[in-house]
Amino acid sequence: MTDEKLTPRNVDFSEWYNQLVLKAELADYAPVRGCMVVRPYGWALWENIQAALDQRFKATGHVNAAFPLFIPMSFLEKEKAHVEGFSPELAIVTIGGGEKLEEPLVVRPTSETVIGSMYAKWIQSYRDLPVLINQWGNVVRWELRTKLFLRTLEFYWQEGHTAHTSEQEAREETMRMLGVYADFAINEGAVPVIQGVKSESEKFAGAVQSTSIEAMMGDTRALQAGTSHFLGQNFAKAFNIQYLDTNNTLQYVWTTSWGLSTRFIGAIIMTHGDDQGLVLPPRLAPIQVVVIPIYKNDSERSIVLPVVERIKAELAGVRLKVDDRTEVTPGFKFNDWEMRGVPLRIEVGPKDVEKGTVALVRRDKPGKEDKSLGSAHGRSFVPQVGLARTVDLLLSEIQSSLLRRATTFRDGNIQDPKDYTELKEMVGNGWVFSWWCGSQECEAKVKEDTKATSRCIPLEQPGGKRKCIVCGKEASEKVYIAKAY
Amino acid sequence: MTDEKLTPRNVDFSEWYNQLVLKAELADYAPVRGCMVVRPYGWALWENIQAALDQRFKATGHVNAAFPLFIPMSFLEKEKAHVEGFSPELAIVTIGGGEKLEEPLVVRPTSETVIGSMYAKWIQSYRDLPVLINQWGNVVRWELRTKLFLRTLEFYWQEGHTAHTSEQEAREETMRMLGVYADFAINEGAVPVIQGVKSESEKFAGAVQSTSIEAMMGDTRALQAGTSHFLGQNFAKAFNIQYLDTNNTLQYVWTTSWGLSTRFIGAIIMTHGDDQGLVLPPRLAPIQVVVIPIYKNDSERSIVLPVVERIKAELAGVRLKVDDRTEVTPGFKFNDWEMRGVPLRIEVGPKDVEKGTVALVRRDKPGKEDKSLGSAHGRSFVPQVGLARTVDLLLSEIQSSLLRRATTFRDGNIQDPKDYTELKEMVGNGWVFSWWCGSQECEAKVKEDTKATSRCIPLEQPGGKRKCIVCGKEASEKVYIAKAY
Repeated sequence: MTDEKLTPRNVDFSEWYNQLVLKAELADYAPVRGCMVVRPYGWALWENIQAALDQRFKATGHVNAAFPLFIPMSFLEKEKAHVEGFSPELAIVTIGGGEKLEEPLVVRPTSETVIGSMYAKWIQSYRDLPVLINQWGNVVRWELRTKLFLRTLEFYWQEGHTAHTSEQEAREETMRMLGVYADFAINEGAVPVIQGVKSESEKFAGAVQSTSIEAMMGDTRALQAGTSHFLGQNFAKAFNIQYLDTNNTLQYVWTTSWGLSTRFIGAIIMTHGDDQGLVLPPRLAPIQVVVIPIYKNDSERSIVLPVVERIKAELAGVRLKVDDRTEVTPGFKFNDWEMRGVPLRIEVGPKDVEKGTVALVRRDKPGKEDKSLGSAHGRSFVPQVGLARTVDLLLSEIQSSLLRRATTFRDGNIQDPKDYTELKEMVGNGWVFSWWCGSQECEAKVKEDTKATSRCIPLEQPGGKRKCIVCGKEASEKVYIAKAY
Repeated sequence: MTDEKLTPRNVDFSEWYNQLVLKAELADYAPVRGCMVVRPYGWALWENIQAALDQRFKATGHVNAAFPLFIPMSFLEKEKAHVEGFSPELAIVTIGGGEKLEEPLVVRPTSETVIGSMYAKWIQSYRDLPVLINQWGNVVRWELRTKLFLRTLEFYWQEGHTAHTSEQEAREETMRMLGVYADFAINEGAVPVIQGVKSESEKFAGAVQSTSIEAMMGDTRALQAGTSHFLGQNFAKAFNIQYLDTNNTLQYVWTTSWGLSTRFIGAIIMTHGDDQGLVLPPRLAPIQVVVIPIYKNDSERSIVLPVVERIKAELAGVRLKVDDRTEVTPGFKFNDWEMRGVPLRIEVGPKDVEKGTVALVRRDKPGKEDKSLGSAHGRSFVPQVGLARTVDLLLSEIQSSLLRRATTFRDGNIQDPKDYTELKEMVGNGWVFSWWCGSQECEAKVKEDTKATSRCIPLEQPGGKRKCIVCGKEASEKVYIAKAY
């Protein structure tokens, strides 16, 4: 990390993002165009995301497994919409062990097909159902316009694949996992998301119905942060996944799939980040508290360091790092850890030792209404006694404050235009939430006129009927429309 | 799982292994030849292996990151020995996004080259060193003679890659990580392993020195269960990984790499398994204790189940499963969980409820010297009171007993032949441990005559000098020679 400042968000949001990812050492560009290296700090964040999700998957009865990277090309062709959707994005292995392959192998862009083929083998009877399996892994979708975490050729994710005896059960599973994603995003990531159904033209290739969680980034653009699909019997029929029901009759299963990827790191960056760098929600932060000893000479150092060590021991319950580098100044360290988004900084100097206090600095720079502690130059001085409890409370407060701030920002940037002319003006500057008749024609017209797309038809609807904002015909639902990542 | 028995180990060890992997539902064959599906039970075992290793890596100062799956073909060519070793095993992507690629991409068989290219970018000064990074992921080495876990086209592993300022530090790291693997194998896997140095002809393609942990399987063949390599400056020079030292002079770094894979699951199976199926060491077992309620009718059931629930609550500290399936008999359940290697079974019937006892059955069927509890038909009857402590002690005892048994077996199958003729006879039936002059000619002769290979030159040596068992020239080291997986 260098001492240079980031390009401010309001000057060039995209450039701000690119610089932040590199300077906070979250990720880097790999030698192969389109590929990404996730650096240790970024991967530690992903590991915390994984842990928070995995716990929720297991609590809802799911188990993990691993399916192969390579899929025969012919498998993708078994589901028509699926192959049409994914063909342009495939990486294909044609040579193996020095020989040209008879059948090319696709590097998985997603695993419905290969998992479907295994489910056909494993599932015989209604007693084998439901099958509730998740996989953590890497997938490849050919993409050269790289944007680290948001758009890369290879990315990391989890993909859940479940099989059920009834349509209703599979639909319930689809919505259950959408709810798990929303709970995770809101309560762990402090990213307020809206749960909804994707339009026909935005749905997953091969799904009957797709749902998503949608978040608003700091530039007001939308980001699809997780998806959950009801696949009906499309893959069951393509791969012949059948079971004997209680009447001993062969039936096709009903399947779902759902995924959340390293893209979510992009959502965290663009929801909470500011011009000083990353701002991490405490529940996911690899380092929750950084402690910086302040001293001018060896004599002060010998007074300060034992207190720092005691604080470290006392705060054993939080993810804490002591920055005792001697080759850089405290000021450099402040900037460095602000760039990396550590939620809370503790400074300990000789005066603090004398007074039995420490200085606390919140990374999230709350507005007036959030100032729970007195402060000077952004610092609060609190007693060393009871510090563990103070820090716990403050981390919780930072977590809620980030969510509040992001929610306020989002709600302040959603508008309800009175007509289509106003929609076109408003959609460049935030989201709109409008009545829509549901026709693909109206959706296509909006996209052509504004480059904005329908994000989702939210589960929460006002009810009643109005006129479609585009064509004026009867509409029974409202839809979010926005420019999206 | 079916009721059929496994082919006994002494009839056909290889067939026993193949059947066990499928019947215990650890893994399955994928549609692409050579590929493997790791089923949920096998993956849960791998997750426990990962956790035990990851904790050790972090305790020794390492962090995790993720490097890309695709490597430009030209990168492999930069290190001569490396490309020669790996070329015959590569899977190559030639088509991406519908177009023929200008430069083919290799699906990583290991990541020294791509990680080297990133280290060249990240490392500038001695202050940036050491770099201690590990990666959990999948790699591909073309291989069609599939043996699940042991030999598959794609497998899962971790690969550590470190860079240091001095040769000594890099050599220390190589041995430190070998020690970490040995500690893990012995204390978590109950797999007694021997740490040693590989011969020149058996070393990693691109290494200066390779070391390994070697284990003896139930058929007395050897299995290399983890490797740690000192790479010298080979990759530093190939990828120009240089740093400014304290005198402001450019220097090449010294690097290491080390890996342990899903192959270790094969080691566990073949070290501890018996004719009834898998036997898992308690510390890694996904399920440590299975509780089976025994009853003949609803009335008995209503007496037994509340006790089972209480036991489950009391044993909250262990990984426990209650098997309350009603469609299968207790006998079926016994066989089923024995096949899956669950270390301890608890049976609770109406008589147990009456007497305040439970029946315990150890999966590892200890010999006389291990019988710490009285028994009848393999069952021990113990009071429900204090069960948590009884179970803890018993799981520890099973863990040590497995290690003792495997060590005794191994040591009983290592021989010290008096001459080369005896070596040739003995090596078909266990390992030999012989003096060796270190020449590649002698090693090649043994391989040609016996199909056995040098496994490792163990770190622990008797000292002194004798005659090479092959050529009779002076030898200062002993080597393990065995047929290997």
